[in-house]
Amino acid sequence: MGRKIVNKILRVDMTNLSTKIESVPKEWSGLGGRALTSTFVAAEVVPTCHPLGEGNKLIFAPGLLSGTAAANTGRFSAGAKSPLTGGIKESNAGGTAAQQFARLGIKALIIEGLPKGDTWYSLHVNKDGVSIAEETELIGKGNYAVVETLEQRLGKKVGILSIGPAGEMRMLAANISVKDKDSRLRSHGRGGLGAVMGSKKIKYISIDDSDAPGVSLADPERFKTAARALAKAIINHPATGEGIPTFGTSVMVNIINAAGSMPTRNFTHGQFEGHNDIAGETMREVILARGGSPKHGCQAGCIMQCSQVYNDKDGNYVTAGFEYETIELLGANACIGNLDDIAVADYIMDDIGVDSIETAVTFGVAMEAGVLPFGDGKEVLRMLKEEIGMGTPLGRILGSGAGNCGKTYGVTRVPVVKNQAIPAYDPRAIKGIGITYVTSPMGADHTAGYAISHNLMGSGGRIIDPLKKDEQVELSRHLQIGTVIVDSAGLCLFVGSPMADDPTFVPSLMELINARFGLALTPDWIGELGMNVLKTERAFNIAAGLSSKDDRLPEFFKEPLLPHNAVWDFTGEEIDEFWDF
Amino acid sequence: MGRKIVNKILRVDMTNLSTKIESVPKEWSGLGGRALTSTFVAAEVVPTCHPLGEGNKLIFAPGLLSGTAAANTGRFSAGAKSPLTGGIKESNAGGTAAQQFARLGIKALIIEGLPKGDTWYSLHVNKDGVSIAEETELIGKGNYAVVETLEQRLGKKVGILSIGPAGEMRMLAANISVKDKDSRLRSHGRGGLGAVMGSKKIKYISIDDSDAPGVSLADPERFKTAARALAKAIINHPATGEGIPTFGTSVMVNIINAAGSMPTRNFTHGQFEGHNDIAGETMREVILARGGSPKHGCQAGCIMQCSQVYNDKDGNYVTAGFEYETIELLGANACIGNLDDIAVADYIMDDIGVDSIETAVTFGVAMEAGVLPFGDGKEVLRMLKEEIGMGTPLGRILGSGAGNCGKTYGVTRVPVVKNQAIPAYDPRAIKGIGITYVTSPMGADHTAGYAISHNLMGSGGRIIDPLKKDEQVELSRHLQIGTVIVDSAGLCLFVGSPMADDPTFVPSLMELINARFGLALTPDWIGELGMNVLKTERAFNIAAGLSSKDDRLPEFFKEPLLPHNAVWDFTGEEIDEFWDF
Repeated sequence: MGRKIVNKILRVDMTNLSTKIESVPKEWSGLGGRALTSTFVAAEVVPTCHPLGEGNKLIFAPGLLSGTAAANTGRFSAGAKSPLTGGIKESNAGGTAAQQFARLGIKALIIEGLPKGDTWYSLHVNKDGVSIAEETELIGKGNYAVVETLEQRLGKKVGILSIGPAGEMRMLAANISVKDKDSRLRSHGRGGLGAVMGSKKIKYISIDDSDAPGVSLADPERFKTAARALAKAIINHPATGEGIPTFGTSVMVNIINAAGSMPTRNFTHGQFEGHNDIAGETMREVILARGGSPKHGCQAGCIMQCSQVYNDKDGNYVTAGFEYETIELLGANACIGNLDDIAVADYIMDDIGVDSIETAVTFGVAMEAGVLPFGDGKEVLRMLKEEIGMGTPLGRILGSGAGNCGKTYGVTRVPVVKNQAIPAYDPRAIKGIGITYVTSPMGADHTAGYAISHNLMGSGGRIIDPLKKDEQVELSRHLQIGTVIVDSAGLCLFVGSPMADDPTFVPSLMELINARFGLALTPDWIGELGMNVLKTERAFNIAAGLSSKDDRLPEFFKEPLLPHNAVWDFTGEEIDEFWDF
Repeated sequence: MGRKIVNKILRVDMTNLSTKIESVPKEWSGLGGRALTSTFVAAEVVPTCHPLGEGNKLIFAPGLLSGTAAANTGRFSAGAKSPLTGGIKESNAGGTAAQQFARLGIKALIIEGLPKGDTWYSLHVNKDGVSIAEETELIGKGNYAVVETLEQRLGKKVGILSIGPAGEMRMLAANISVKDKDSRLRSHGRGGLGAVMGSKKIKYISIDDSDAPGVSLADPERFKTAARALAKAIINHPATGEGIPTFGTSVMVNIINAAGSMPTRNFTHGQFEGHNDIAGETMREVILARGGSPKHGCQAGCIMQCSQVYNDKDGNYVTAGFEYETIELLGANACIGNLDDIAVADYIMDDIGVDSIETAVTFGVAMEAGVLPFGDGKEVLRMLKEEIGMGTPLGRILGSGAGNCGKTYGVTRVPVVKNQAIPAYDPRAIKGIGITYVTSPMGADHTAGYAISHNLMGSGGRIIDPLKKDEQVELSRHLQIGTVIVDSAGLCLFVGSPMADDPTFVPSLMELINARFGLALTPDWIGELGMNVLKTERAFNIAAGLSSKDDRLPEFFKEPLLPHNAVWDFTGEEIDEFWDF
C-alpha cells in the first residue's frame, strides 16, 4: 500500500503554479476540520490582507474522524479570510470530499498566491498529491455542468469541489460546491469562499481516491464499539432519529412560525400566513406524490438523511439538499410561498454557485428597495439566471450579498451581522440564536451555536425561555464552544441534540478520537479546544479591524416583532460578556 | 432691528414635521463651523445608528467669522454620521449660505428624525426661523433646475442648499449643493451627506436673509484692523496672492505630475503622459480664448478667486468650480485627458449631485473592473447622465462610491480609506498627505491636513522630503490640528499657506475672533480647539466601530510607483503615533 502522503498537507502556490507535499507541523497534528482551518488561517494569513488578493489563502480540511466508519463524520471544512465579512471564515459541507481526502491521507489542501494573466486552472488531487492544469472548456459553466463533464472525463467516482459563474466573477455571495455521492451538490455556502477560489482562478478541484491508503485506526476494536455507541445515541434521539429523518430540516417551518420567529417580509413580521404551503409536512407529501425521495444523505454513512430529492410535477429532478433556511427565507421572508418556485431557485443558486441564505436575504432587501415586488417568485428565478448568472450590474449587486445590496440602495432594514446575512430565525423572538449571530466570529451564522435547540426544543432537559434575556449569553457560549468539536471532527451539526441530551454521546466521541489516533484525551479537551479555537478566530478578526462594535445586531431589531412584540434588548455590555472565558 | 433669533439654533424634527428655535448651549457658544458640527454630532448622534435611519442628524453651521467683512470667511460646514465612512463627517463648502445664516443670527440648523410616507419636503429659513413645506415640482430634478426654479419663485437673492437625484436616491456618493453668488453650485462634497438629506426627504433648503439683523461685532474698530492685516497676509503670499488666483487649483497638475504623485490609471502610475492637456496653464488659455472667466470666487469677499467659469467652444457656459481634484482624477486617473469632456462631467456631477472626487475615483475602479475602457470620456458622460442620474443598477453601483464599486466587482486595487476615495495625490510619493488620509477621522481627505504645502511647496520655510517617512506624522498632526480652526472660522483652506509662512496671520486671526465676540483668547486656544475637536471626532468613530485598523492604506500601496519606485512603508505603529497628543 503506497502510504507516502499519509497525514500530509498539500500546498499549491498559484503565483508560481507550483505544488508541494509537506509534513503536518507538530502543533497541528491533533487538529482537523474547523480547528485546523482556523488555526491555519490565523497562523498564515495576514489579517489585514485583501481577501481577494495574493495574501489570502484557501484551505480545505476533512474532519478528524472523516473517512472512518463512524456515522455522520464526513463534513469538509473550508477556511480563509472572508471577502464578505472581512474576518475569518470556516464553512463546512457534506459531499464526498472529506472522506476521499481522509482516505488519501490528506490532512489539508492549502491554496495560496494568485496567478498572473487570464488563464483558468483546475487542481487534481490523488494518491500522489496535487497537480495543476489549465482549464478552458468549463469556464463560465454552472456547477451541475462541471459535475457532468468531469464524470465523463474522469469517471463517476470522481470527487469534485467547484465554483460556478458567481465564484468566477468573485461575487461576495459565491459558494464552493461539493459533489455528493449521487452527483448532487452540497455547498460551502457562507462567507464568499467561492470568490476566494475564483480570485485564485481555480474552477474546480477533482479528487481521485483510487488506491487510497485508507484511514488507519490506532485501535480498531475500540473504535468500532465507540462508533456503535455514537450511532445509537443519534438514532435514539427523537430529533435525529425521527423528526429530521421524516421531514428534513423544513420540519422547522411550522415550529419556528409557531414561535413567532419566522422572518417574514424582510424581517418585519414573525409569522407567515402561508407557512403551511412551505412546511416540511407539505414538502414530504409533495415529494412522495411526485416520486422524489424524502430522505437523502449529504454523505456516505449518514444515518439521519435530512436531505431529500425534490421533483417537479412531471417527476423530473429539480433539486436536492433543499433546506429549511432557503425555503423559509425565500418562502416567508421574500413572501414567495410556493415550494416549486423555491425549489427551482435552489437549483439555480446551486448551479451558478451562490449561498442560498445570503442570496435569499438579499432578495428580501432588494424587495424592500423596490427592485422587485415581494412574492414575485418568477422574477427571482429570472434574476438568478439572467442577472446574477450573467453578471449584469443588477446581478453583481444581488450577488454581493445583503449588506452590499442594502448600501447600494440606501436601505436601512438590512439583516446582517459582520456583513453576513442573518439566517431564518428572527433573533428578537429566539434570543439565544441572536447571541450566536452577534458573537460568532463567522458573522451571523445559526450553525455556530444552534440555540434553537435549548430555546424551543428542550435540549438539555428544559426550555430556556426564547423571549427572555436570561441565560442566553451562557447558552450561546456553551453551544459555540461545543460546536467547535462538531465542526472539527467532521460531524454533522445535528448531533447537537444527542450531544446535549444523551450522556453517552461525549464519552463515545472522545473514545472515537482516542481510538482513531491512539490518544488518551479526556472530555475536558473538547471544551479547551472549543475555547482556543473561538479565541483564535476572534483574535484574527480584531487584528483584521473588527471590534466589539461588530458584535451587534442592526438598529432595526429594536422594532417590535409580532406576535410577541419582541424587541432585541441586549446592551453592548451584556453581549460582550460572551467573551469572558 | 429684529434680533429675536440672534445666536440661535434652529431645530427641525422631520418625524413630527415640527420646528423650534433654541438657545445655544453655553458650552457650544465659542464654537462654529466644524468645531460646532462635530461637537454636536458627538453629543447627539448615537455612534452606532444607521446613517440613513431616524437616529442620524444633519447639521449646518456657518464659521465663527462668517458674515463679517473679514476675507474668505464664508465657508459653511455640514455634519452628520457619514453613510459612506460609517464615522463622523464634516464637509464644508463656499456659496452664500454661511454668510446668510450668520447675518440671520443662526448659529446652526439641525435636522433630525425621518418623515413617514413618500412625501418630499423643503425647508425655508428666514429672519423668523425655519418652516417646512411639501415639495413636488422639483422632485427628481437636478440642482441647476432647483436653483433656476427657486430663483423664479423666490427671487434672485435666495440662498439654496439642495440635493440632486443622487441624494434623493440616497446614494453614498451624493453631495449637498450650495448656491454661490452667481447662481452656480458649490458642494458639501464628501462622505455622502446628500444621502442623509435625502433620507430625511428634504429636497432643498431656501434661505431668505431679508431684514437680517446682521453680524454684530464686539469691537468693530479692532476687527477692521485685524481684517486688514489678515487680508494682507493672504495677498502677500505667493500661493494665495499669485499662483492660485492666476491658474486656479489646477495649477497643481504640473506640480504633482513632476513630483510623480499624480494618480494615473487607477493609481498604477505616478505620472500622466497627457498632463499638459489638463494643466491649469492650458485651462487658463482655453478659458480666456472662449470668453470664460479664469477667476471666480466661491463666496462674496473672496480675495483669491481660485475658481473659474469654463465655457465650451461656442462660448456657452459649461461649468464653474472646476477643481484640480476632479480634473486630475478624471483626466489622469481615468485617463480621459480632455478638458472639455471633464468640464461636462463636472457639470453633470454637480447637477445630479454626486461628489466629483468619489465619483471620479469610482470610474477608475470601474475601468479596472472592465465596466468601461480607461479613457472613454464619452461613456463616462453617458453613465453619469443615464446610469447614475437615472438610478439604474449600474448607476447605483457607481453612485455608491469607489469602495462599494470595488466590492461589487471584486477589484483589489480600490483606493479608499474608511471607504472614502483617496484624492488626487498618490500617498506613496507624497507621504505626508498619506498620513493625513489614514489618520483623519473623515476618511481619505486631503483638506484635513494639506501636507502638499510642506512636502512640495516649502511652506514652513523648508521642504520635508515627500519620499521619506521622517517628520511626516508630526507634519500631518500639526496641520490637522491647525486645520480645525480654519474649518471652524469659516476660512478657506488656502489660507494654510500664509498661516504657515506669515507670522502675522495667526495673531490677526485671534484678534478677529476676540474682536467679534468680545473675548481675550490667546493663540494657544487654536491648538487646544484643534486637539479637542480631532479627539472628539476620533472618539465618535471608535464608538461607531472603527478602529486603528481603519487608519491604514489599502494593501496595494505596497506596489512600487514609478518614477520613484515609491512604496507606502509606514508600519501600523508608526501611523498610530499620530494620536499621541
